[in-house]
Order: sequence, then C-alpha cells, then structure tokens
Amino acid sequence: MRVSESEARELLRSLKFRDGLVTAVVRDWRSKEILMVAHQNREAVMKTLTTGLMHYWSVSRGRLWLKGETSGHLQALRGVCLDCDGDSILYDVQQKVAACHEGYYSCFFRTLRGGRWVIFRKKKFEPSQKYKGEGVDAAAR
Amino acid sequence: MRVSESEARELLRSLKFRDGLVTAVVRDWRSKEILMVAHQNREAVMKTLTTGLMHYWSVSRGRLWLKGETSGHLQALRGVCLDCDGDSILYDVQQKVAACHEGYYSCFFRTLRGGRWVIFRKKKFEPSQKYKGEGVDAAAR
Repeated sequence: MRVSESEARELLRSLKFRDGLVTAVVRDWRSKEILMVAHQNREAVMKTLTTGLMHYWSVSRGRLWLKGETSGHLQALRGVCLDCDGDSILYDVQQKVAACHEGYYSCFFRTLRGGRWVIFRKKKFEPSQKYKGEGVDAAAR
Repeated sequence: MRVSESEARELLRSLKFRDGLVTAVVRDWRSKEILMVAHQNREAVMKTLTTGLMHYWSVSRGRLWLKGETSGHLQALRGVCLDCDGDSILYDVQQKVAACHEGYYSCFFRTLRGGRWVIFRKKKFEPSQKYKGEGVDAAAR
C-alpha cells in the first residue's frame, strides 16, 4: 500500500508531532500480533506512506532509518490507522523474517507470568550468527 | 491480574524509562484490538501492576491518572508483555464501555482508505451528551 506525495501531505495534516515525533505501533497484517513500537518524524511518515516500506526516526542515532536496510527484514505497508489525538499511528505490515534484533518475530517476547518476566516466543534467527562483527543491533536495522 | 509491591519493583528493573517515561500500548484482552497508546512514569507502572487497574502519566496535565477516574471507563489488567528495549509495554485489558474520549471503543477509529482518513468504527457513546460542561476530555479520564 502506498499513496502519492500530495495525498501523503494531506494525510499528515491530521498528525500532531510532539517534539517532532509520533509513536508508531506496528502489527502483523494477518495475525494482528504487535511486532514493535518506534518513533517517526515527519520525513519517516512521508517515506513510509509514499514508498510502502516502513521508515522510522532513530532517536539514539539521530537519523532516518529504513527498517530492514541492514538486516533485509523489511516491512511492507498493508494498512494504517490513526488515533484520536493524531500522535500515534497503528501500521499493519507484512514482515520479512522477524521484527526484533534479538531474533524474535515480535519485540514483545517477554510476558508477565508468576510475578516475573518469562520469554514465551521462539527465535526465528540467532543474531550472534547472522550479524557477526556488525555491532549489537545491526539485526534491527 | 496484579502483583505484590516487591514483585512490581523487581519487574521494573527490566524497564528503561526515557525522560522518565515508557510507552504503553493497550489492547482488548479478548479481541486483541488496539485501544489506545499512552505514557507511563515509574509510579503509573507501579500502580497499574499492584492495583490491577491501568494508570498513566498525563504529559499535558503533569499528573498521574487512573483511566476511568472521571468517566468510569476503567481498564482491568489481564496481561502484560515487555519489548526488547524495555521502553514499551503491551497491556491486555478488560475495557469498560469504551477507551476513547470521542466515544469510540478504540482511539484508532480512523483508517487510511482511498488516500484519506475514513472513520470505520461506530460510537459507543456520545461525549457531548455524557459529559456536558465537564470539559472536552472528561470522557478520557
């Protein structure tokens, strides 16, 4: 799914960027399971809507980031919902391989059970094997 | 669902507060539809985990906020997942009436269709009727 530049500019008029950012919640388009939460600036939203591939703003690295640019784990856009305040966007995506740099399909791989965090997912890949020497979070990029 | 104060303190050790806040993504515990996105400080997470009722930090009002304190639209905690970075929490809740102050069950009531935002949900209540004279977002509180 993608829209034209002029449509994207019009859609962005309903967004409210706080400190230049909105919150992106990303969901598997079929199963509806939550894959990750990230930030987007104006350019990241524009790129996402016009290319059909998820782009984020990396607060820690201070730059625009195409999800999958290093890992190949691209996210193809399949649907978008907007919240009442216009500061959170819910994206439905088709995820390649896995969303999480730790090797899980979803970043939410820990759940509260018996008063503690328990890992309840199985890894899709082993980051230490796939990204030798490329730095700790190459798998996320 | 709730945990003891000592369990909650231990669970919070896995969280990473950025500028004192984490992102809370809130989901209907049965249908898994996303209801809202909000912020939590340390106290809001502690209160949520130990009382079993969703609490948030209102950035605009600068105070702790029990969801439903004004509207009665409480959210009972049914499950919690944590992301890899520890800065986003996914909550499963049992929602009373509706999550959104605009009267919709979910705050994400607009979707992208044909290049524009389209309302695709029906209202559960009419805010202007329910909250006469109580201010624009009493329904959210």
